[in-house]
Amino acid sequence: MALLVQKYGGTSVGDAEKITNVARRVAATQAAGNQIVVVVSAMGKATDELIALAQSVTKSPEPRELDLLLSTGELVSSTLMAMALRELGVASISMGGAQAGIQTDTAHGRASIVHLDPARVRRELDTGRVVIVAGFQGITDDMDITTLGRGGSDTTAVALAAALKAERCEVYTDVDGIYTADPRVVPSARKLSEIGYEEMLELATYGAKMHPRSIELAAWYKVPVLVASSTQDIPGTLIHDVDNGGNAMEVSNKVSGVTYERNVARITMRAVPDRPGVVAHVFEPLTDAGISVDTIVQNASAERLTDVSFTVERADLVRALEVSSRVASDIGAADCVANDHLGNVSIVGTGMQNAPGYASRMFRALSDAAINIEMITTSQIRITCIVDEAQVNDAVRVLHQAFELDTE
Amino acid sequence: MALLVQKYGGTSVGDAEKITNVARRVAATQAAGNQIVVVVSAMGKATDELIALAQSVTKSPEPRELDLLLSTGELVSSTLMAMALRELGVASISMGGAQAGIQTDTAHGRASIVHLDPARVRRELDTGRVVIVAGFQGITDDMDITTLGRGGSDTTAVALAAALKAERCEVYTDVDGIYTADPRVVPSARKLSEIGYEEMLELATYGAKMHPRSIELAAWYKVPVLVASSTQDIPGTLIHDVDNGGNAMEVSNKVSGVTYERNVARITMRAVPDRPGVVAHVFEPLTDAGISVDTIVQNASAERLTDVSFTVERADLVRALEVSSRVASDIGAADCVANDHLGNVSIVGTGMQNAPGYASRMFRALSDAAINIEMITTSQIRITCIVDEAQVNDAVRVLHQAFELDTE
Repeated sequence: MALLVQKYGGTSVGDAEKITNVARRVAATQAAGNQIVVVVSAMGKATDELIALAQSVTKSPEPRELDLLLSTGELVSSTLMAMALRELGVASISMGGAQAGIQTDTAHGRASIVHLDPARVRRELDTGRVVIVAGFQGITDDMDITTLGRGGSDTTAVALAAALKAERCEVYTDVDGIYTADPRVVPSARKLSEIGYEEMLELATYGAKMHPRSIELAAWYKVPVLVASSTQDIPGTLIHDVDNGGNAMEVSNKVSGVTYERNVARITMRAVPDRPGVVAHVFEPLTDAGISVDTIVQNASAERLTDVSFTVERADLVRALEVSSRVASDIGAADCVANDHLGNVSIVGTGMQNAPGYASRMFRALSDAAINIEMITTSQIRITCIVDEAQVNDAVRVLHQAFELDTE
Repeated sequence: MALLVQKYGGTSVGDAEKITNVARRVAATQAAGNQIVVVVSAMGKATDELIALAQSVTKSPEPRELDLLLSTGELVSSTLMAMALRELGVASISMGGAQAGIQTDTAHGRASIVHLDPARVRRELDTGRVVIVAGFQGITDDMDITTLGRGGSDTTAVALAAALKAERCEVYTDVDGIYTADPRVVPSARKLSEIGYEEMLELATYGAKMHPRSIELAAWYKVPVLVASSTQDIPGTLIHDVDNGGNAMEVSNKVSGVTYERNVARITMRAVPDRPGVVAHVFEPLTDAGISVDTIVQNASAERLTDVSFTVERADLVRALEVSSRVASDIGAADCVANDHLGNVSIVGTGMQNAPGYASRMFRALSDAAINIEMITTSQIRITCIVDEAQVNDAVRVLHQAFELDTE
């Protein structure tokens, strides 16, 4: 008998019929001899509607109050799920974050789980019940309701799986797994049967359906996570500790996938005086303005002047340019110039760092396709090139082929 | 500085504008130097909508799940109220039943408050905040959410007032107080400035706006309760310990009001064998069928046969007649006959039991108006006559005048 934690997102529980469909899947999985914890998000647009309600009363809702308000969305879907299961003859019980023992800090709107005591959940499982837990929420020492912020329900599911030492956490969404590339761009993209946590982290950052935070948690506690379709009964992708250690040298292709991003804008601050602390002067005001900076490249210094380039989301460009132009003037840099029609393309795979041929193979493939590389940034398991937005699709296809991702 | 508990019903918090209006009243009351706890019901039809949602999933929602679902209605309105107060610059915090320390038994759907620990509420009050508490809900020892059933939010308010030793519990509704009679029937009906708990209990039973349960709680803990309008700034009615003890003999008129009810049906079971236990045989099957029996009259026995009459709501008559006809046959009674066009009229007042003239004065007044009395029943503070439904309005007016209720 396996213990499974299953998470269903908002579109999967969008109305009574969909909830009943999910309940049937859960019932079948239980009938196959498993203990099941189900984590649900709020129904469809419920969270948006609650936010709109708050904004009809005040333009700036207090985070604590907003949390208590928003937490009701998941309570509604979890109680309905419990009712739907009982309607199918399956004993079940729903729990809010408090009942499920999910203790968080007091950072309303983006709380972190501090401790998870699964005693009550386990007790109910042991009586043969399916336990439904409202995702996205927890409770502070002071009994205040918190929400976990973005990716909250995924985090709830993974945390419960870790605390319960579940065999697997299953995340059901409207995509059926993780692909080697976006199938809309690369028709020959292939669904991966498995992937490591770190690779998934990179893929998730570029738009896949799990929040990095929940994957980090899964990696930390080594919780295997299956990402699969909530409607189709087909195999998904298992995210787990892929062991490449023993046979790393025999693995001919360590690239798992190609990801991309559009809507990237770049700002270059030119002729920045190269003295200690100057980079902090550049980026702190951007952070203060709530602007998220992605890739940063600082060119080698010439005559104690350096150019600093960084990318932001295109939507943030105007504000970012205002802030950085002011900074440039303050610190005695020449000026700021922007390019607002960029994108990026990355290859992702563990083990790349030990096999230096990957970067040059990537650059060669792009060069052969006459795609100019504007900036380069690398991490342990990813190499990213900033390219012209118009060439993003071509770049993804070229790399998918160059790394032979369309063949198993 | 007084500590007040104010309760606002669902229509008073039906939308953002109404919530903001209530927040203004609360802000003004606080500005006048009071500490305030606000108890709110769910917005308008929110509870009905949640019930409909449950029924779209299952015909028979599990009470525990339904409680958790319904509890969200009051969480939404209380968080919005807290936000509206902050929007007006008033520090505030909202709490669910759990945060407010409202411990109940496990009788889902109709839980009773077992213990109320107001420590957190008091702590927040002492920091200068208005505390908003979601009405109608509590939490069990096992951290399960319960709802208090009918009259739940009134009960929450009174219980908080008792636990906090508040100066007063104020219940704001769409009526502005308790009247000597229904103003739609008796244009000269007068609003009472005060009334005793027991009289209020009788008046509430006949359709006034507080559930008897909350009045009983207020009486037990001697919490003064003001019933007043949520929209108009006019005096309401104070329900409190009216002391008639010392000067009872000097009080010329102990009748506080006249109440009535339509849609009453009567069943008479004729020629019932008059043996021990027979009455239980008559009423147990009705209870089992969920039929609520009001007035019961058993006539004096003649030749070991007796007639038993009782009233039910007209909507229950057909079922009640089926059940009681079956019973009549079982126990050897002659038959059952029904009258489905009755009503009742009552005079209510403390001290009546010590002044026997009231009953005869009531019967005389009705007789003078040619109103036939079908049945009579009395309690400590109420005398009720069952009359023809067509004569209910006349009876109310006649009695209002006979007991000089239109003059202070």
